[in-house]
Amino acid sequence: MTENQETSLGLQDNTEVLQRISERLTERFTGVFAAETIERYVFESYTALARTAKITTHLPATTEHFVTDRLNALAKSKGAIDTDVPEVLFVCVQNAGRSQMAAALLTVEAKGRITVRSAGSQPAAELDPAVVTAMSEMGLDLTRNYPKPLTDDVVRASDVVITMGCGDSCPIYPGKRYEDWELPEPANQPLETLSTRHRRHGTHATRPRRHQGQGHQALRRIELGRLDLIPLALRVHNPKRTLSTKERTLLPPQQGPFGASARSIRWKATWRSTSSRHTVLSATMLT
Amino acid sequence: MTENQETSLGLQDNTEVLQRISERLTERFTGVFAAETIERYVFESYTALARTAKITTHLPATTEHFVTDRLNALAKSKGAIDTDVPEVLFVCVQNAGRSQMAAALLTVEAKGRITVRSAGSQPAAELDPAVVTAMSEMGLDLTRNYPKPLTDDVVRASDVVITMGCGDSCPIYPGKRYEDWELPEPANQPLETLSTRHRRHGTHATRPRRHQGQGHQALRRIELGRLDLIPLALRVHNPKRTLSTKERTLLPPQQGPFGASARSIRWKATWRSTSSRHTVLSATMLT
Repeated sequence: MTENQETSLGLQDNTEVLQRISERLTERFTGVFAAETIERYVFESYTALARTAKITTHLPATTEHFVTDRLNALAKSKGAIDTDVPEVLFVCVQNAGRSQMAAALLTVEAKGRITVRSAGSQPAAELDPAVVTAMSEMGLDLTRNYPKPLTDDVVRASDVVITMGCGDSCPIYPGKRYEDWELPEPANQPLETLSTRHRRHGTHATRPRRHQGQGHQALRRIELGRLDLIPLALRVHNPKRTLSTKERTLLPPQQGPFGASARSIRWKATWRSTSSRHTVLSATMLT
Repeated sequence: MTENQETSLGLQDNTEVLQRISERLTERFTGVFAAETIERYVFESYTALARTAKITTHLPATTEHFVTDRLNALAKSKGAIDTDVPEVLFVCVQNAGRSQMAAALLTVEAKGRITVRSAGSQPAAELDPAVVTAMSEMGLDLTRNYPKPLTDDVVRASDVVITMGCGDSCPIYPGKRYEDWELPEPANQPLETLSTRHRRHGTHATRPRRHQGQGHQALRRIELGRLDLIPLALRVHNPKRTLSTKERTLLPPQQGPFGASARSIRWKATWRSTSSRHTVLSATMLT
């Protein structure tokens, strides 16, 4: 018996391997979820990923990873997992750039103190390769990440949901904090426009910045228990110019509502271009 | 207690109404599916529709319709519903034009002898308004239809799956018939291009037609028990010219593999323009 069956159209029947994944997860979540629920999660997650995925070679393995995370989120929201680790969800349209970068940065900064997820309202076929490259230069490996559709379970589990231009697409539950950040998509930003804006507005962080007629960029602070998140203003600079470390810092050290004893999590997004044709994304972590 | 709770962002919390939908469906599918499975179906279906829907006013009602259909499909594939009515699924990218039209036409033609569904790999925000108008002129009301994401359950329930340019996005199960029809999306077809092709290729149905470099349009017959489906070649005509009934028929009456006793289901798609700016879709049913 082979792993995958091929049909006359050359397409793969992954039923057997998905059944085995269902069995493994049913054992893992014994007493939390019924086998029927888990099988449905596995097959529907596979279908949801297959709809938009560009490369389907590793789709069963990706499905297992995605389902495990979804079931953990659901178990937490049902109280089946006892944890006081706060959960943050970043949502953008494609889950290929902004939300992936935000999640990666916060994961590193949080050092296990926050569970971080990301999702997209209309997931892309793959991560923006320029984003993967830029993050790789910072030592963050996103090569195994994949765009994920926004699901109910991860919203339920979250304490803070941060949407980026797709607030309407997210289910609303009471008791959560919802924020919408106006961060433009890096892939669609022409370099010249961004650079012009940079020069016009200067770099002082407390001065709101304008993006594509969306009004002023609000700097919002997320107070999350004893952890604070601050989305810093987007920083745009000329690719021919090297920024000093000092220049990269747009806001003074954040004090937080709990004073010196508070643990502060801060991050910012910085646009950068590594080619003359496209604007790519980079990021700076503040420690 | 109101139906919906509004958050500070002005977004609606539909938890209560979705819970009531779950309770209704749990009662309806007693002995078939566990309450846990149904609740997950309701909330995940709502989230999936909300991700892409343009108008969210009636989303809970749409969710109930969508979930009922999905659960019926799943029940059939599990053998919980005893039926010998064959099921056909049309899948295109947006589930906003081609697959909706194909499903509507076949539903009318089948007169209850086939269960027909449609879905999209990347569902649009709404049906193509031009398609709704064109179908309305034929007496087919698509105003309550909505783009639906392709799900595992409807594929499982189907005897025939007909994809239109998105074959890779569909899960493969043994024992089903998969077909890929090369029908271009009406919304993206400039009228002039279509008209030119029409003139170049003539109207003889047995002669394969060429579409956008996709090679020859194969005329495939779907043998479905005692029912046959034939996708007729696309017919393109000048909007200033009225076609006679005779002209609309591209293929001679289909005999079917079971001779004169077989019930034949045939349909065709005809492109038509009702404005100088856009090509819209019309359709002709052959009885």
